[in-house]
Amino acid sequence: MIANRGEISLRIVRACKELGVKSVAVYSEADKDTLAVKLADESVCIGPASAQASYQNQDAIISAALAFGVDAIHPGYGFLSEKADFARKCEENGIIFIGPSAEIIGKMGDKIEARKIADSASVPTIPGSDGVVKEFNKALEIAENVGFPLLIKASAGGGGRGMRVVKSGDTLEQDLNEIMSEAEVAFGDSSVYIEKYLTDIRHIEVQVLADGKKCIHLGERDCTAQRRNQKLVEEGPSPALSDEQRNELCQSAVRLAEKVSYKSAGTVEYVFDNIERKFYFIEMNTRVQVEHPVSEMITGIDIIKEQIKIADDQSLEIEQKDIVLNGHAIECRLNAEDPENGFMPCPGTITYYRPPGGFGIRMDSHLESGYKIPPYYDSMIGKLICWGYDRNEAIIRMTRALSEMEVQGVKTTAKFHSKLINSEQFKSGDFNTVFVASLLEKKR
Amino acid sequence: MIANRGEISLRIVRACKELGVKSVAVYSEADKDTLAVKLADESVCIGPASAQASYQNQDAIISAALAFGVDAIHPGYGFLSEKADFARKCEENGIIFIGPSAEIIGKMGDKIEARKIADSASVPTIPGSDGVVKEFNKALEIAENVGFPLLIKASAGGGGRGMRVVKSGDTLEQDLNEIMSEAEVAFGDSSVYIEKYLTDIRHIEVQVLADGKKCIHLGERDCTAQRRNQKLVEEGPSPALSDEQRNELCQSAVRLAEKVSYKSAGTVEYVFDNIERKFYFIEMNTRVQVEHPVSEMITGIDIIKEQIKIADDQSLEIEQKDIVLNGHAIECRLNAEDPENGFMPCPGTITYYRPPGGFGIRMDSHLESGYKIPPYYDSMIGKLICWGYDRNEAIIRMTRALSEMEVQGVKTTAKFHSKLINSEQFKSGDFNTVFVASLLEKKR
Repeated sequence: MIANRGEISLRIVRACKELGVKSVAVYSEADKDTLAVKLADESVCIGPASAQASYQNQDAIISAALAFGVDAIHPGYGFLSEKADFARKCEENGIIFIGPSAEIIGKMGDKIEARKIADSASVPTIPGSDGVVKEFNKALEIAENVGFPLLIKASAGGGGRGMRVVKSGDTLEQDLNEIMSEAEVAFGDSSVYIEKYLTDIRHIEVQVLADGKKCIHLGERDCTAQRRNQKLVEEGPSPALSDEQRNELCQSAVRLAEKVSYKSAGTVEYVFDNIERKFYFIEMNTRVQVEHPVSEMITGIDIIKEQIKIADDQSLEIEQKDIVLNGHAIECRLNAEDPENGFMPCPGTITYYRPPGGFGIRMDSHLESGYKIPPYYDSMIGKLICWGYDRNEAIIRMTRALSEMEVQGVKTTAKFHSKLINSEQFKSGDFNTVFVASLLEKKR
Repeated sequence: MIANRGEISLRIVRACKELGVKSVAVYSEADKDTLAVKLADESVCIGPASAQASYQNQDAIISAALAFGVDAIHPGYGFLSEKADFARKCEENGIIFIGPSAEIIGKMGDKIEARKIADSASVPTIPGSDGVVKEFNKALEIAENVGFPLLIKASAGGGGRGMRVVKSGDTLEQDLNEIMSEAEVAFGDSSVYIEKYLTDIRHIEVQVLADGKKCIHLGERDCTAQRRNQKLVEEGPSPALSDEQRNELCQSAVRLAEKVSYKSAGTVEYVFDNIERKFYFIEMNTRVQVEHPVSEMITGIDIIKEQIKIADDQSLEIEQKDIVLNGHAIECRLNAEDPENGFMPCPGTITYYRPPGGFGIRMDSHLESGYKIPPYYDSMIGKLICWGYDRNEAIIRMTRALSEMEVQGVKTTAKFHSKLINSEQFKSGDFNTVFVASLLEKKR
């Protein structure tokens, strides 16, 4: 059973078909006629349009799974994919949750716990507190060690929420108290931790696959091109790393996964400090990522199929030595949004859709002509992934594919993506997480 | 200017876009609204529907090319792609013909001449006559050397036309005289040659790229799955070759191309004798082949872009050592034909079209919903190419993609292709050029 929607639901249906596994697609009342529902062997409505009432409705999904007698649930990304309680409910109902155990999801979802595991696996973490900070004196001691600016982060925060930059010791006490109170109100948990605030960084992540005994990596993805913490363009290999650094980074991700006897597909996320040219662990995502196709295109490994096989207790057949990074892949997350109007979502009917095609082009999308984008969920209409012999060819091919694609009826970010990847800075490979913001600023 | 139609015209438009080269698509009156015409920078009608009056009309194409002031003409495959006289007309009008020179096209198009070149490059040829045979005594002498059955072939024949199997010496004289008379009538040329008749063979071909100085190969394609000499499924690498044989085969193709200082993309075709496990040169195709994407998918090299760059006098940047065969690719040539009714062509309107998608899938097709397949040309509606980590995954992925694809309104060979690639014999990799015929026989 695929407990998700949109392109990832379709992606998982395709993997099931190739594995000879029967699939059940779930859908909300707003998603009845989507491609995954059409292509899956069976389908079932799990509630009204609102995600809370359907795709996040654990009981409705478990009930449907039991009614269909499914062996396993694939949660995709988002929704229930990193909910330890949902994984536990699956386990309790004799259903395999396609992902790591509830215990591991819980551990890795706790930022302070995850940092401790990273430290114990000799994975570099951002200089800062060793755990929760509760008092000003402790905070001051850390500040003296790592220097200003600092970042105070709520343990339960994430995605840009629950954090504050502290520029000097003058405001440290006040800032600490305020963010602790805010965290208590927002997350019901006042725990905070302190980190060195890095100002010129890239986001780089490593894809791992582990069967509980063996762990391998599939190289890294560079997700530095972001807007307001939302990834826009991902690529692999990262243009910022030397081969030596790539090897160090990937080995550290494997060490982390091995430390917890990880069993599934997972992603170890890092920041890369452009100034010091050093990487630091930030978190592990215990699910498949939106941008997993980048790694598939450069390694040839079907990550979703491997993830399902691991959940079925099959051992990984691939050895690390078989993994060769081949060429370069770039993914653009295409949204039905209006870049000319603050990226306002544009739900509506796709009156005509023609995906781009040809050599090196992969369009992972649930669109069809006549498809109505519902207003209830995120605005992603698909992911366009282009492979090239080298980075330059991948950029050129992506540009060609973006201009070839036809999506009529709604506004999309296709042209914006084309400008982004053809900017001098993107082409140079030398940029950081705020470069998109400054690109947008320049346009004004 | 692209002097072709259908999927290959679209393929070349895409390559031009990636090279930053403006393209002009030509079209017959029947092909006005096709995708290549829509996506090319310019387009021009070159005549009525009949191919003779349009796509084979050399003067109309040259006139249009001169009117648009194009630098070069890409002839695609079929139509004018191996007409030495057309290449010469281009040369005379100061237009680059994207392919080798008229002289090389002529030499390689003459089977006896090509065989002589192969012999001089130590490329194995099928035991038989050294050149044209005109007398019975000479034929008998050859027969004594190579044994029966023999094949008598008209020099000007091809594609299964103008050949006869001779089973014993009893009928040799009569057969020789008859085929010479027939060849005179059919081709205006009574020249024939004699070869050993091989009964259990595969067709394997090597893709080469050469800039006039350097020549490299992109591995081989196995095109054994044929019906009435029409290729149905192509794949690479060939499941029949050992690494040593692959290397020998590919080296021999490079030797042949080097012998004539070949300059363009080209394909050296061989038969592989399943009994003796030996390969023999049969001909060189001096153009891009329908099945070129198989090699693109396993090497990462964009053959059309390389071909255009070579025609622009650029040197090949790729070295042989950079070419690594990665995974396995299979191509199905999908036709609008009814396999239940003797593969009768089914022109008509595609009421709905949705290409298959996802990892490892490439659909090279000019189809769109509403597209009307004209009755004037061949019945190919597209090529589905699937890449897999290994041959097994490529077969599974192709099967999934064939069942996912939607083509409504006309009959297609998709299901037939699915049966073919899932037959025990195809899956085993051990088959020959008549296996499809016996598969069809069994079904009756």
